[in-house]
Amino acid sequence: MTVQMDAAALQAFLLRDFGQVAADFQVERADLAGVTLRLRVTAQHLRPGGTVSGPAMFGLADVAMYLAILSRIGPVALAVTTNCAMDFMRKPRADVDLLAQARVLKLGRTLAVGDVLLFSEGGAEPVARAGLTYAIPPKATGPN
Amino acid sequence: MTVQMDAAALQAFLLRDFGQVAADFQVERADLAGVTLRLRVTAQHLRPGGTVSGPAMFGLADVAMYLAILSRIGPVALAVTTNCAMDFMRKPRADVDLLAQARVLKLGRTLAVGDVLLFSEGGAEPVARAGLTYAIPPKATGPN
Amino acid sequence: MTVQMDAAALQAFLLRDFGQVAADFQVERADLAGVTLRLRVTAQHLRPGGTVSGPAMFGLADVAMYLAILSRIGPVALAVTTNCAMDFMRKPRADVDLLAQARVLKLGRTLAVGDVLLFSEGGAEPVARAGLTYAIPPKATGPN
Amino acid sequence: MTVQMDAAALQAFLLRDFGQVAADFQVERADLAGVTLRLRVTAQHLRPGGTVSGPAMFGLADVAMYLAILSRIGPVALAVTTNCAMDFMRKPRADVDLLAQARVLKLGRTLAVGDVLLFSEGGAEPVARAGLTYAIPPKATGPN
Repeated sequence: MTVQMDAAALQAFLLRDFGQVAADFQVERADLAGVTLRLRVTAQHLRPGGTVSGPAMFGLADVAMYLAILSRIGPVALAVTTNCAMDFMRKPRADVDLLAQARVLKLGRTLAVGDVLLFSEGGAEPVARAGLTYAIPPKATGPN
Repeated sequence: MTVQMDAAALQAFLLRDFGQVAADFQVERADLAGVTLRLRVTAQHLRPGGTVSGPAMFGLADVAMYLAILSRIGPVALAVTTNCAMDFMRKPRADVDLLAQARVLKLGRTLAVGDVLLFSEGGAEPVARAGLTYAIPPKATGPN
Repeated sequence: MTVQMDAAALQAFLLRDFGQVAADFQVERADLAGVTLRLRVTAQHLRPGGTVSGPAMFGLADVAMYLAILSRIGPVALAVTTNCAMDFMRKPRADVDLLAQARVLKLGRTLAVGDVLLFSEGGAEPVARAGLTYAIPPKATGPN
Repeated sequence: MTVQMDAAALQAFLLRDFGQVAADFQVERADLAGVTLRLRVTAQHLRPGGTVSGPAMFGLADVAMYLAILSRIGPVALAVTTNCAMDFMRKPRADVDLLAQARVLKLGRTLAVGDVLLFSEGGAEPVARAGLTYAIPPKATGPN
């Protein structure tokens, strides 16, 4: 088994289909173990108190899992998030990037499930974790 | 029992402590049953395909619950989200505002728990729901 | 719109398809607003410390939502729980029954989503809340 | 850093404080990476259709995480589950035991957070995953 899309293919997909936010994200790695995605933390992602905002963390986890699914099934733009359960465990640093490690735990015919750990770059302990479910449109898992 | 902060007090709090995003939000109602918060949907909240983005929905739910807790305990800027479990059920409309109805289910000494329903304005069916937990800093629930 | 199965029909369904646990549960109400289900709390549901166990609360929430979905779509024995996010807020009483109030928030072609509040009988405050998602097998939502 | 309680100490703790259910569980491993807990699957854990029930899976995940926390902080009987978000991904086998792999992601002063994967013994793919939060009573994390 190999990935359908590697890091370069995922980055190109982001640029084409999510132009608005693509510049925030850098795909660091995409293999069968999952995807590592970087959020380039800038002022727009921060909150008073010098930390990364909740929506920015949610968005990073969501995009990382989306790309981890696409790396397996190919460029299906229509998978939609149906559920996200997220634990916010530590305050992310405002002065370094945020890295998401996403892995796919189930790739079914209609649902894909996975989880994500978020780390402030250079930190050993995760700042947040998330479990996410995506609905996959009919036929998306067939040959593309 | 009465609320410690009404809609006007919550709106003033948002402006002072969350200047960056305060303009996006309008507190519509704040009473013992909870808080209704409006997200003024603009281009920055949209995603390709003509819908409101996941991070924008998450942010709305998070701020609505935060304000619902503050309306009960007063202006404590330090409560932090520790958990959010969210179901995305329907595609929000891109051309109307999004309304959050938040209610507090538990207000403990160290944890507050509540849930939120999100509606596209004028819609009868919720587009998303969330359960959220906040950690409350020591003494925050005492007299302010 | 009316329910496909009322309280008596749901109770009969439980007895036939879930004989093992049916005696624990009593359907109190089933209408378009949702289902109220009683767990007859006995020694087997308790934990040291005089409270209802987590698995017993989970099971009650899960069965209540399952019945709430069936009341809408008819006796489809194959819907399966895909996700449950549960907040445990207060210690349930060991000496009274536990009541679940379940409501369906979305009834889609392949997924159903709802939430549940659990109360110790006679208590004003919920002891737990849950959001649940069920996968519905193909054709289950068509005419039965 | 070492664990405060190893597999044998955790098993003894289960027997003493959870006599009612201790016989269902076998602690297979307890080290800094986490805890592996076996559920001896018997008829009482099964559901019609030949699979392990949801409450049995929930209970296994909950006990596994509880023991993973205790292995770090010592025999504190009072930590309580405040949140559990669980994805049910595959049907567990009825004819083999269920194994939980729990890891602690955060061990704070008042909250502990971790996640759990459940496997049917011998299976390569997880049947379920859970994220759990525990409230730790004051002083529990200090010297015991």
